[in-house]
Amino acid sequence: MNQLKFSLEESEIPEKWYNILPLLSLEPPLNPKSLDPAEKEDLLKIFAKPCVEQEMSQESWIDIPEKVRKIYRHWRPTPLFRARDLEDMIGTPAKIYYKYEGVSPPGSHKPNTAVAQAYYNKKEGMERVTTETGAGQWGSALSYGANQFDLPSTVYMVRISYRQKPDRRPMMEAWNGEVIPSPSKKTEAGKDRFNEDSENPGSLGIAIAEAIEDAAKHENVHYTIGSVLNHVLLHQTVIGLETKKQFKKAGDEPDIMIGCAGGGSSFAGFSLPFIGDVIEGEKNTNFRVVEPTACPSLTSGRYRYDFGDSAQETPLIKMYTLGHDFVPPPIHSGGLRYHGMAPIISKLVEEEVMEPVAVSQMEMFEAALEFSDVEGIIPAPEPGHAIQQTIKEAKRCRETGEEKTIAFLLCGHGHFDMEAYREYYSDELEHIEYPEDEIEKSMDKLPDVE
Amino acid sequence: MNQLKFSLEESEIPEKWYNILPLLSLEPPLNPKSLDPAEKEDLLKIFAKPCVEQEMSQESWIDIPEKVRKIYRHWRPTPLFRARDLEDMIGTPAKIYYKYEGVSPPGSHKPNTAVAQAYYNKKEGMERVTTETGAGQWGSALSYGANQFDLPSTVYMVRISYRQKPDRRPMMEAWNGEVIPSPSKKTEAGKDRFNEDSENPGSLGIAIAEAIEDAAKHENVHYTIGSVLNHVLLHQTVIGLETKKQFKKAGDEPDIMIGCAGGGSSFAGFSLPFIGDVIEGEKNTNFRVVEPTACPSLTSGRYRYDFGDSAQETPLIKMYTLGHDFVPPPIHSGGLRYHGMAPIISKLVEEEVMEPVAVSQMEMFEAALEFSDVEGIIPAPEPGHAIQQTIKEAKRCRETGEEKTIAFLLCGHGHFDMEAYREYYSDELEHIEYPEDEIEKSMDKLPDVE
Repeated sequence: MNQLKFSLEESEIPEKWYNILPLLSLEPPLNPKSLDPAEKEDLLKIFAKPCVEQEMSQESWIDIPEKVRKIYRHWRPTPLFRARDLEDMIGTPAKIYYKYEGVSPPGSHKPNTAVAQAYYNKKEGMERVTTETGAGQWGSALSYGANQFDLPSTVYMVRISYRQKPDRRPMMEAWNGEVIPSPSKKTEAGKDRFNEDSENPGSLGIAIAEAIEDAAKHENVHYTIGSVLNHVLLHQTVIGLETKKQFKKAGDEPDIMIGCAGGGSSFAGFSLPFIGDVIEGEKNTNFRVVEPTACPSLTSGRYRYDFGDSAQETPLIKMYTLGHDFVPPPIHSGGLRYHGMAPIISKLVEEEVMEPVAVSQMEMFEAALEFSDVEGIIPAPEPGHAIQQTIKEAKRCRETGEEKTIAFLLCGHGHFDMEAYREYYSDELEHIEYPEDEIEKSMDKLPDVE
Repeated sequence: MNQLKFSLEESEIPEKWYNILPLLSLEPPLNPKSLDPAEKEDLLKIFAKPCVEQEMSQESWIDIPEKVRKIYRHWRPTPLFRARDLEDMIGTPAKIYYKYEGVSPPGSHKPNTAVAQAYYNKKEGMERVTTETGAGQWGSALSYGANQFDLPSTVYMVRISYRQKPDRRPMMEAWNGEVIPSPSKKTEAGKDRFNEDSENPGSLGIAIAEAIEDAAKHENVHYTIGSVLNHVLLHQTVIGLETKKQFKKAGDEPDIMIGCAGGGSSFAGFSLPFIGDVIEGEKNTNFRVVEPTACPSLTSGRYRYDFGDSAQETPLIKMYTLGHDFVPPPIHSGGLRYHGMAPIISKLVEEEVMEPVAVSQMEMFEAALEFSDVEGIIPAPEPGHAIQQTIKEAKRCRETGEEKTIAFLLCGHGHFDMEAYREYYSDELEHIEYPEDEIEKSMDKLPDVE
């Protein structure tokens, strides 16, 4: 019988993360006031020391602490599936594989870094960690990770999501996370807005500002971040390292790797261990990074220094950006609604190692349902973007007769996104136009730093 | 490092189901009018022939069709975990293992039989299958299973659940299931109630009657059932057969096996392959079957002939029952709100092979959260009952110093039950009393057949 699932033993969970920084020349983050390279000390105020060191490390391999690996074992190694039914449905000579991160307790790849960040902060004597969350994936992962080390967590959740995704709050509370609808009266960043209108819907920008302020003004409290930064992408490389071992077991290797990107950490985790081989000239794998047409930083943004947040308080980072002021239309892929992109992914796109593609919400839902129809798993809308591109590539192979091996990352399940599917079926979803005017306007406000 | 997860290869998915019927002397179902043993022909009107044959088969092993095994591979073999963190939290010398069925696309053990029933019906030329669903677990599984064979499915969903669990409907629709709130105007069984009040909240009894009528009155349409009957329990034995192989790999074997029971199919699937060894005198494993105090058929019911449904249309079956008229209080474990119990489980309890235990909703939630706190996975409320009993046994071992090996079945995740957890945290859940008066009243209406 033709194998569908390529599993690994617990002992095959990677012992080191893969760091691609030594192979890239990334521009340093800049202090937003002086425009000089940001000081390590600034970062140490809000992040754990090992995270700051990893952020700029030139070591190719970084040990995964034994206590982090121990917790990874609750759901890792994650399975690599061969999507034979999808191949049959398309009628393609291509082989399609997918790595599935939805088996983690919070349901996505996010705990790969949440557990690591929680561990380092606990070890440093922190008494609490903070973060922000939009749709709730990252907040859930952080609560889960922190709770594994008996570390209290505070999650500022964008108020409109807090109302629209009521199931995420009890999930975070099950893991002893404190969930605060943002803007709140707990911080300077939220107070005025809250007092003006206690039902203010909030934004990711405000929630980030609240979480950072909460960390900065308390001595033993640190902030944690779910994507974009180098150390977060590093922690995610367990995904790609496992995938490599699984392809070896399958006696195959990918020609094309596909993933969605909001901040970019899941696709980086999946692809970086393979990209190392490409940069070192050992392979010529292709990489497609897929974003929503509603928030197209890579396909419509500029490669420039910009703020990581709308409050203009983070260091300036060199990345593809739509401008820190850009507010994406309300698509259901909350995890892809970010104005910028991880510096590592940005650099790889700039150097044409990765090819960016944009997919509309409607195309995405159609593809996600074609997938669940045959493969069973109902994907989150975010990886639906990767599925759409995968089906497209497989159809191209059907035309050309190429027997390519395609691998995509299914970074999470859609159990908390069923309302989005209901809207799609009920024809309540409208086509969301490419937000051309908004992008132009926010591009005008890019900081004047080349 | 101490292993946490015991995985099996795809090739280790069982090739046969285990049938315990040859080891038990079950009383036959009776025709509700004549009180003679029910005719095979009556069952063939609504069920596929292989299912009816399995219902009374005296073969110990029954081949799993290759096409069913092929679909099992989408999520099977499921993992067996060692709950070391739970052991540490309790401080027990006992070893705790759990078999986790929540990795299936619908999120529970239910597709083990849904896929099989769909396959047999497709092969028999059926053009559609019907069923009822309460909270939605079974309806989701049936839609998923039927869709794998391109077989349309119609699910009559109790209207109050249809409203309270809005996320289940789009899930079933993703698998091309037709979801009809019950009572509906589509059937004689539902029409009058619907016409009287189109917002009638419905009941499982009405929904069963609608699904059976829909099947009976259309030539190429069959009914499918999610629990209670022998063939359903048979299909679930893949769970226990895998568990046996996994214990062999772990170099251990269970002293006590624990599971929750509504109709009884999940715990039967988990335990029957081990119970065979006990009946044949090879082992002396203990079995605890856990039910809610709100619906205590095994601990407070009688072992008698009764109807399977409140409409009194099914054959009479010999089982532990609270009376077919009994309407359990609205606990959050929808899957455990059934007035009767599978004849196989009932017999094993009557013969004292299994020991029944009842757990209250409050105790259950407390235990479920102790579990997710350390192990991560948030359980559905139904297996929360098994967790409560497991923790109790492990604490007993702490007192006595016994190094027992305890295995429980985690039959599904709680991703669609987060509202129940929210109510628990918010102190909105009240203690639900043992429904003594209602039980007495419905017991009075038991049919007069010994």
